[in-house]
Amino acid sequence: MPTLLLDQQKCLQNMEKMALKAARHSLSFRPHCKTHQSVEIANWLRDFGVNALTVSSFPMARYFAEAGWEDILVAFSFHPGDLEKLMELSERCKLSILVDSPAALPFLHHIPMQIGFYIDIDTGYARTGIKAENLDLIEQIIVKARTSPNLEFRGFYCHAGHSYKAGSLKEGDEIHHKALRDLGGLKKQFGLYSPKVLYGDTPSCSRQEDFGKIDEITPGNFVFYDLIQHTLGACTMEEIAVAMECPVAGRYPAGERIVIHGGAVHFSKESLLVNGASIFGQLVPRSEEGWTTAAIKRYLTGISQEHGVMEQCGDLIREVNIGDKLLFLPVHSCLTAYLMREYQTLDGKLIATLNS
Amino acid sequence: MPTLLLDQQKCLQNMEKMALKAARHSLSFRPHCKTHQSVEIANWLRDFGVNALTVSSFPMARYFAEAGWEDILVAFSFHPGDLEKLMELSERCKLSILVDSPAALPFLHHIPMQIGFYIDIDTGYARTGIKAENLDLIEQIIVKARTSPNLEFRGFYCHAGHSYKAGSLKEGDEIHHKALRDLGGLKKQFGLYSPKVLYGDTPSCSRQEDFGKIDEITPGNFVFYDLIQHTLGACTMEEIAVAMECPVAGRYPAGERIVIHGGAVHFSKESLLVNGASIFGQLVPRSEEGWTTAAIKRYLTGISQEHGVMEQCGDLIREVNIGDKLLFLPVHSCLTAYLMREYQTLDGKLIATLNS
Repeated sequence: MPTLLLDQQKCLQNMEKMALKAARHSLSFRPHCKTHQSVEIANWLRDFGVNALTVSSFPMARYFAEAGWEDILVAFSFHPGDLEKLMELSERCKLSILVDSPAALPFLHHIPMQIGFYIDIDTGYARTGIKAENLDLIEQIIVKARTSPNLEFRGFYCHAGHSYKAGSLKEGDEIHHKALRDLGGLKKQFGLYSPKVLYGDTPSCSRQEDFGKIDEITPGNFVFYDLIQHTLGACTMEEIAVAMECPVAGRYPAGERIVIHGGAVHFSKESLLVNGASIFGQLVPRSEEGWTTAAIKRYLTGISQEHGVMEQCGDLIREVNIGDKLLFLPVHSCLTAYLMREYQTLDGKLIATLNS
Repeated sequence: MPTLLLDQQKCLQNMEKMALKAARHSLSFRPHCKTHQSVEIANWLRDFGVNALTVSSFPMARYFAEAGWEDILVAFSFHPGDLEKLMELSERCKLSILVDSPAALPFLHHIPMQIGFYIDIDTGYARTGIKAENLDLIEQIIVKARTSPNLEFRGFYCHAGHSYKAGSLKEGDEIHHKALRDLGGLKKQFGLYSPKVLYGDTPSCSRQEDFGKIDEITPGNFVFYDLIQHTLGACTMEEIAVAMECPVAGRYPAGERIVIHGGAVHFSKESLLVNGASIFGQLVPRSEEGWTTAAIKRYLTGISQEHGVMEQCGDLIREVNIGDKLLFLPVHSCLTAYLMREYQTLDGKLIATLNS
């Protein structure tokens, strides 16, 4: 079976680097835990001064609250199906949620414990959130929420997820600066309410040095990084902190093809275009310390439910035997970690997750 | 949170239809359980005369063996990393595995209990298996295996997975008939060893009526079907037996956009091209009995970790409120079921899986 290896040193270095950057820019730091979904890994962040987390669902919030985290933002648009879980959780920790519609407020009117909310702002991603220009709607939410005794407006939240679609570093920069302008404008416009501004996709938080009027960053993927982040210029290959260890299940010299046990239920079907073709992972050579970077780039070129396929392996086919274990950097570490449900550190220790 | 709904009646009808087809063609029937990964659902197959299963991993084999299934094929190329699990399982049930290289045999030489193996044949999929023309290699495996006292050659196995890439029904037919010719030829060539021929991808088993010299079919996806199978002509829309129920988390009238709680960790990132664009699920209207088929085709047009996005929803945006639950047929039910880990029948009963 495949194993998800975690290089703890790289992970700690990634955490430290982001924490130092936040400190350098006087930003609060509320890492998103949907990437690792692990209490043990979240607890490593405490050494870097972190005491508040971001999560993407109420079950995830509960998992971290039960482990002693006291300040949690559920960064997913609130809808009434989550009301019961919200009420339960509001008794356990300082809870914040996202709201992007006045339609959500009536459900929150009678909650018995205080919670905070951030208004989700769309600066161009076009997934969730209110467009920054839509001042009337934003004001309507703030004013309406003030009639609910236990609902506190805490500020604005923005995930500029379109940074993942940026075709160039320059385009990534433009997305970031547009977000800074939008969020800075809102902070001023609604200054009366002293809003905090939360922001943070991993590419922008990793690459940028100007954070304008942002108060707090909420990146998640930076703890591990992955091939997508590398493509976006957010990390070096050496900073990627997780690798899939997969046994060779077949070798087919005629086609220079190697098949591994490691498929869509392990890596996910997330792909990346390399030279016009979809790839699902990149081979890295094993080293004494874990893994190193490859001189020759070789990729997982196909994936089905349990199988991964490397085509046109060249010489590698002669170096590899059935049962050997190959290492691959994942395309999207959040999905791979979610599927694998646990980590094995380089010294063999297992680390559990919410999904173990 | 999203829920994976299972229409048990449709599922039973799909099972019955495939069982009747197998009987009509005098084929044994060894359904693949990687799609549902559920003992309860596998047990429904007993009513249709099924007493042997196919699985894709040793943990899956163990799960079904512990539930009383006595004849299990692990349809994944054997590699030495699985030896310990194989030996444990060989004490519990009649076990078969796949072999496609002489390199696998030495590891199996000293196993204490008898197991059977099938030689994996590649009729064009180019994933695992030996090409049918490679008679020397096939003979080498059969002869070499005879020196291992507890290793029994049982025949040939073929998963013609390239049927999923067929661009037309005609191309699908050609893939099927090429496989029948290849496998029929091998059965004759190695007639001395009385090999059984196992075959079965869901598109071919669903659509074809000529099974040549095949002895046993091993389809898996047919219990649920999905949008990919529908595109391949393997099922009607009405036969798709699972649907994702997802709460509406946001509605954005300006963009005619609806956002649901239901993302890549629920549906998977498997996509299907519809009119040149990737889709991740198809909306179906709720009905008294479960769901029905839609007059207007609407799709999940984007997916991220926890969010699903429907763009250009037209009138639907005015009919839907935050918290409403929408139903979607999955693109690839195997991956969706794996991610969701449990089913809810239309009368509200929860059905567990290996991964629950």
